[in-house]
Amino acid sequence: MTSADRPTLGVGLIGHAFMGAAHSQAWRTAPHFFDLPLRPELTVLAGRDPQRTADAAARLGWASVETDWRRLVERDDVGLVDVCTPGDTHAEIAIAALEAGKHVLCEKPLANSVAEAEAMTEAAVRAAARGVRSMVGFTYRRVPAIGLARQLVAEGRIGQVRHVRAQYLQDWIADPTAPMSWRLEKDKAGSGALGDIGAHIVDLTQHITGETLTGVSALLETFVEERPLPAAAGSLSGVAGEGLGRVTVDDAAVFLGRFSGGALATFEATRFALGRKNAIRIEVNGSEGSLAFDFEDMNVLQFFDGSEPAERAGFRRILVTEPGHPYIGSWWPAGHGLGYEHGFTHQVVDLLTAIAKDEDPTPSFADGLQVQRVLDAVERSAAADSVWTPIAAQDPERTA
Amino acid sequence: MTSADRPTLGVGLIGHAFMGAAHSQAWRTAPHFFDLPLRPELTVLAGRDPQRTADAAARLGWASVETDWRRLVERDDVGLVDVCTPGDTHAEIAIAALEAGKHVLCEKPLANSVAEAEAMTEAAVRAAARGVRSMVGFTYRRVPAIGLARQLVAEGRIGQVRHVRAQYLQDWIADPTAPMSWRLEKDKAGSGALGDIGAHIVDLTQHITGETLTGVSALLETFVEERPLPAAAGSLSGVAGEGLGRVTVDDAAVFLGRFSGGALATFEATRFALGRKNAIRIEVNGSEGSLAFDFEDMNVLQFFDGSEPAERAGFRRILVTEPGHPYIGSWWPAGHGLGYEHGFTHQVVDLLTAIAKDEDPTPSFADGLQVQRVLDAVERSAAADSVWTPIAAQDPERTA
Amino acid sequence: MTSADRPTLGVGLIGHAFMGAAHSQAWRTAPHFFDLPLRPELTVLAGRDPQRTADAAARLGWASVETDWRRLVERDDVGLVDVCTPGDTHAEIAIAALEAGKHVLCEKPLANSVAEAEAMTEAAVRAAARGVRSMVGFTYRRVPAIGLARQLVAEGRIGQVRHVRAQYLQDWIADPTAPMSWRLEKDKAGSGALGDIGAHIVDLTQHITGETLTGVSALLETFVEERPLPAAAGSLSGVAGEGLGRVTVDDAAVFLGRFSGGALATFEATRFALGRKNAIRIEVNGSEGSLAFDFEDMNVLQFFDGSEPAERAGFRRILVTEPGHPYIGSWWPAGHGLGYEHGFTHQVVDLLTAIAKDEDPTPSFADGLQVQRVLDAVERSAAADSVWTPIAAQDPERTA
Amino acid sequence: MTSADRPTLGVGLIGHAFMGAAHSQAWRTAPHFFDLPLRPELTVLAGRDPQRTADAAARLGWASVETDWRRLVERDDVGLVDVCTPGDTHAEIAIAALEAGKHVLCEKPLANSVAEAEAMTEAAVRAAARGVRSMVGFTYRRVPAIGLARQLVAEGRIGQVRHVRAQYLQDWIADPTAPMSWRLEKDKAGSGALGDIGAHIVDLTQHITGETLTGVSALLETFVEERPLPAAAGSLSGVAGEGLGRVTVDDAAVFLGRFSGGALATFEATRFALGRKNAIRIEVNGSEGSLAFDFEDMNVLQFFDGSEPAERAGFRRILVTEPGHPYIGSWWPAGHGLGYEHGFTHQVVDLLTAIAKDEDPTPSFADGLQVQRVLDAVERSAAADSVWTPIAAQDPERTA
Repeated sequence: MTSADRPTLGVGLIGHAFMGAAHSQAWRTAPHFFDLPLRPELTVLAGRDPQRTADAAARLGWASVETDWRRLVERDDVGLVDVCTPGDTHAEIAIAALEAGKHVLCEKPLANSVAEAEAMTEAAVRAAARGVRSMVGFTYRRVPAIGLARQLVAEGRIGQVRHVRAQYLQDWIADPTAPMSWRLEKDKAGSGALGDIGAHIVDLTQHITGETLTGVSALLETFVEERPLPAAAGSLSGVAGEGLGRVTVDDAAVFLGRFSGGALATFEATRFALGRKNAIRIEVNGSEGSLAFDFEDMNVLQFFDGSEPAERAGFRRILVTEPGHPYIGSWWPAGHGLGYEHGFTHQVVDLLTAIAKDEDPTPSFADGLQVQRVLDAVERSAAADSVWTPIAAQDPERTA
Repeated sequence: MTSADRPTLGVGLIGHAFMGAAHSQAWRTAPHFFDLPLRPELTVLAGRDPQRTADAAARLGWASVETDWRRLVERDDVGLVDVCTPGDTHAEIAIAALEAGKHVLCEKPLANSVAEAEAMTEAAVRAAARGVRSMVGFTYRRVPAIGLARQLVAEGRIGQVRHVRAQYLQDWIADPTAPMSWRLEKDKAGSGALGDIGAHIVDLTQHITGETLTGVSALLETFVEERPLPAAAGSLSGVAGEGLGRVTVDDAAVFLGRFSGGALATFEATRFALGRKNAIRIEVNGSEGSLAFDFEDMNVLQFFDGSEPAERAGFRRILVTEPGHPYIGSWWPAGHGLGYEHGFTHQVVDLLTAIAKDEDPTPSFADGLQVQRVLDAVERSAAADSVWTPIAAQDPERTA
Repeated sequence: MTSADRPTLGVGLIGHAFMGAAHSQAWRTAPHFFDLPLRPELTVLAGRDPQRTADAAARLGWASVETDWRRLVERDDVGLVDVCTPGDTHAEIAIAALEAGKHVLCEKPLANSVAEAEAMTEAAVRAAARGVRSMVGFTYRRVPAIGLARQLVAEGRIGQVRHVRAQYLQDWIADPTAPMSWRLEKDKAGSGALGDIGAHIVDLTQHITGETLTGVSALLETFVEERPLPAAAGSLSGVAGEGLGRVTVDDAAVFLGRFSGGALATFEATRFALGRKNAIRIEVNGSEGSLAFDFEDMNVLQFFDGSEPAERAGFRRILVTEPGHPYIGSWWPAGHGLGYEHGFTHQVVDLLTAIAKDEDPTPSFADGLQVQRVLDAVERSAAADSVWTPIAAQDPERTA
Repeated sequence: MTSADRPTLGVGLIGHAFMGAAHSQAWRTAPHFFDLPLRPELTVLAGRDPQRTADAAARLGWASVETDWRRLVERDDVGLVDVCTPGDTHAEIAIAALEAGKHVLCEKPLANSVAEAEAMTEAAVRAAARGVRSMVGFTYRRVPAIGLARQLVAEGRIGQVRHVRAQYLQDWIADPTAPMSWRLEKDKAGSGALGDIGAHIVDLTQHITGETLTGVSALLETFVEERPLPAAAGSLSGVAGEGLGRVTVDDAAVFLGRFSGGALATFEATRFALGRKNAIRIEVNGSEGSLAFDFEDMNVLQFFDGSEPAERAGFRRILVTEPGHPYIGSWWPAGHGLGYEHGFTHQVVDLLTAIAKDEDPTPSFADGLQVQRVLDAVERSAAADSVWTPIAAQDPERTA
């Protein structure tokens, strides 16, 4: 009757930095709050440095370690591979895992290029035919307030969408003396704020509205082109060392867009918005109602119901902590809010549920590819005087 | 010692709708709160319909009426002409008034085209040489919180500006059955949301940052192309009559921009943001601090001071009602907020002060022209696949 | 058709400090926005100092001056006396004016003692029998959001009231070196924060709920017992002079209360809430809904509708600027908010309307007396170990 | 180097409802984020019903079960007893555990009466002499924003505290048809809103200010005196069954208080504040600064710094997610907020740290007793016409 009695699924996690820690917490926590159809086991953690990986495994609760991800992928006791490495390795790992018959959860952005994402999507489609499932980790979809936003649109409470405005604002490199990191190198990260955080608001606005972006007009900017190298190559400490490194990604991206239903959109992703730490702000205005969300107050969704008489109408602050709200029934009583990491737990729940039901989970690799196409169009527009750049619709044959 | 002892200045107001009422309240009120160097007299109101103009004059406090604005401009007892008519008449009236030696206050946008605005600016420069002054009515500059925002930038508290995001959101025609009005006709209004409200956020962001926009990439949209005609031609009532009229302006405008100091900007002006009534929202992120303003809470400015230690830093909600804040010393004790109309009173105060000091008030017609050039670039970009469209810098010879 | 054609009513104003300026603005402004049944004339201003009164009359727009309020009361061209003096003079002036057949608008609190307020109320009842009207100036009742709050309660949208929490928070004497003023002297002001600002939240909560307080339990406190004397007796400047004066009123008052329908209430009035300038905060929780108001955001009322499904419910932020909201139809379009002074204009409108209709305006002197009884019970409870102190219901015979 | 290498401490948990689930998550999670000096093992869970306890143990991660708490207390593999039962059993269990040499973590309120709390405190003092530690579970102290509030007071940034206002607002029984529960029965729960949630704000305000309450004046109210019995005795479902039960506790408590430093305070605890789900709202005004907190936005602390110039001052919204904020360095990057349950994890961290250092953790049973004395004074005041009721200072001999 509880998760303890369920069939087990061995999980292999690759990467143990920020995302690795968040995923570990999710794998550990999900069975204690949700009645899962499969019981995940924290089988193996892979990382390059033996000592650091062993330490991480002990701290994060993994039963064993590998220093070569290929070994992890090949292990018989691993049924699911969770990819938490930088974007330049996603394609190789995920495709290998799928071909080895392992379900895959891959962090976003799906890949560093459209070509990679296409190859991954093709691998995912082939794997799905064999019952092997894949999901890309747009975890913010699993914030309950975002789930409620999607429900309200789907119920018609917003009507025809006319405006979308989305911002993802951080400030962790607003200081020009903040040191280099792999996230500032194009060959590792693919892009900067655009792919790292812009990808999230592209996915979220498409997820909430149920529509896709059909074109963009964009500007990219690198405000600080050289930064101090960190104290040591492997350092995570943010301490500067000697010499300067070249920033090869965007510090900020702004773009206009149009959704498939005709709505106008503005997007902004930046790591230079001083005072905003992780502000994902999304507003949707429709013909019947409006929505507003800010991750700085993540347990809240603002909803304007246009059907109310004008004198009684106003944006209502829905505290998304009711038992009937998405995912909430498994947690605490009303008013006892969730935090950042809960989205990862919900992601694991939805993934295990889909695997057990033999269904394709969402967001699929095809969804990740579509986001990648948007990011690619943003870069092409920015490189071509911001000219309007259409985004090809998905080929349903290929990605269904 | 009080305004009552000052020399008088006869004012002639043209137009008595929304803006005419707001300007009338300003002319009536300013002398009672501010120690003005000139005492304005509400000499004459001009409007086309004799009965409606007479009624308006009685209601608004004007001593006499004219039904031809040319008569008003010619009157010897008029020293200042206040132009509150639709944009298609601004150029003709303002130029005639300046040439007749009258100071001019002209509502925004300055004109319906760059050509008109250039002619007006040339007339203003010629008039200034004769001591005749002119000002364009970007009244929101005079909201105390906006004044404080500009001060903080000027003091260096924000540092180098990196991001500007500005929205002017209304919803008064979100309902497709809302009837036609002159504001939806291109030949009268010049443009739609772009010129009516977008002009304000272009001016405000340039005013606050002390920088100018150097280029834009834009999208315009008309969501509802036909609307019911109003019940009667002169109707102000918003009641629909028979037949349909064609909307020939934009319902919404979104554009990217770049400021002269390198900042990235996003702009949005719309009358379709359901639930937002008059939300002017401006954020500025700089290298040293950030600002946020929302006219829905107009007595407040949010300020993030980046020099605070991270653990003690946060956006502070400055209630802009202290005696030392712009304009506030003449009003009420701290905490007793101002309203929409006070900006118009401040505008009159600044205009009369400049006239008495024999100085050019701001914003000048040249400033209005520069905004017009931005609007023009927005329209050209939108017509050319959103391609990046530079904005010519002002010719300092011509407009100084 | 406009106020200009209406019969006139000569107004005599006594006092020209903060309240005198606010009332003057109201008398000047009301006819330009509202279609009044009587046209007020700013006939005469009374003050003790001839020069300062003359200056004030010129600045505030009054046609003549008196230095003895008795002369003002006797003048034939005065039909209404507006009392804006400190509380120790209210009874004498108001009673004299009513006996002279003048309508009276008297600032709050009605008097410095229950006995004075009773005498005033008796005079008002006698005067009303002769068609002479009186009103006490609880101006915050006329903030549109407060009017809407009362409407929602009256419509049953809140249900049975269970909780009221009300705070009036200022900080203008939080600094112990802020100098003495008449507001800190018991013989002039009657009480401190209690009567000055506590009176407002007592009146507002009774007005909104339509119920009266039946008892209280209270604490009073004077945090700073001696303060520097101001630089000069008549100084309004807040500059300290030589020597110390004794503060003889409360700096802060807190009390529990119970409303006639059974609700529990907490009240707090203080001038020591650092950072709160004029924060009138009122919340009402009922069996069907809840309300929240904060004067720091005065154009907003928060409303929770308990009849919504839990998953869609939340406090909605009603921007009280719609044409259908109280008083708003005479001002600006939706979203263009009002300020502090507008409440005074609405007060004048309601008073003139009642006079013209030959009806008793509200709040009546009897209402002011009832508030005085609450304040008196607060003081008695605080003096008696906070013991529960009932508040006598009004004698309907006497005050009807 | 990680928790995995530390000595273990066997934990026995008694109770597996809401609090049991929250504590379980804390015990499971703490070792993965914090470098603990002791590694907790989830040794045994006790509950009365064998099947339900076994199910809970499986779901919550406990290695074994007991159906008699006395057996749990006696077990050699249990070094710490965690008491999550209703208040009527706290004294017996906690004293037995302490006498058996087990460290004790006891949920709040410490007991249902002062006498019980005194006995428990005496047992705790005796146990401490033997190195056996005890803590009462005022978990909200461990919300990072509360920790920051306490730091700011301790640093002198608030100055002398003058006002405290504290509310704990819920609405889960605002509906009169909500069924009976043990929390509504005096013999099980001790009191209603007062002890359940009022206890938290008494503790929090004392914790933040570093002062104690010296007296109170109070009102209690039971709005709904009879409620439907739940469908089945053991039901947690909130579904009503047949018949009515008598509510024997308060639905709401309001009280005035005075702190040891002279501040005035208002307190309100209610389960009838419609629309407020778990709103813990605390404000502190001091001579140098002010603080405001609302658990509905739990990752934020508002701070007003009175040393700023008035024109630049305002409540600043500190997002309490910086690495330097209390507890945050062990979690996520800035801006990635925590949720309700994290406070329990921090509680476990602090408890284990104190045990390992051989120090008494806080809040101690003596702190819990002091809160109990406040609650007791509230009940006595409410029963005696709200008369001021002093609260005895702790006897330092007894409780040190």
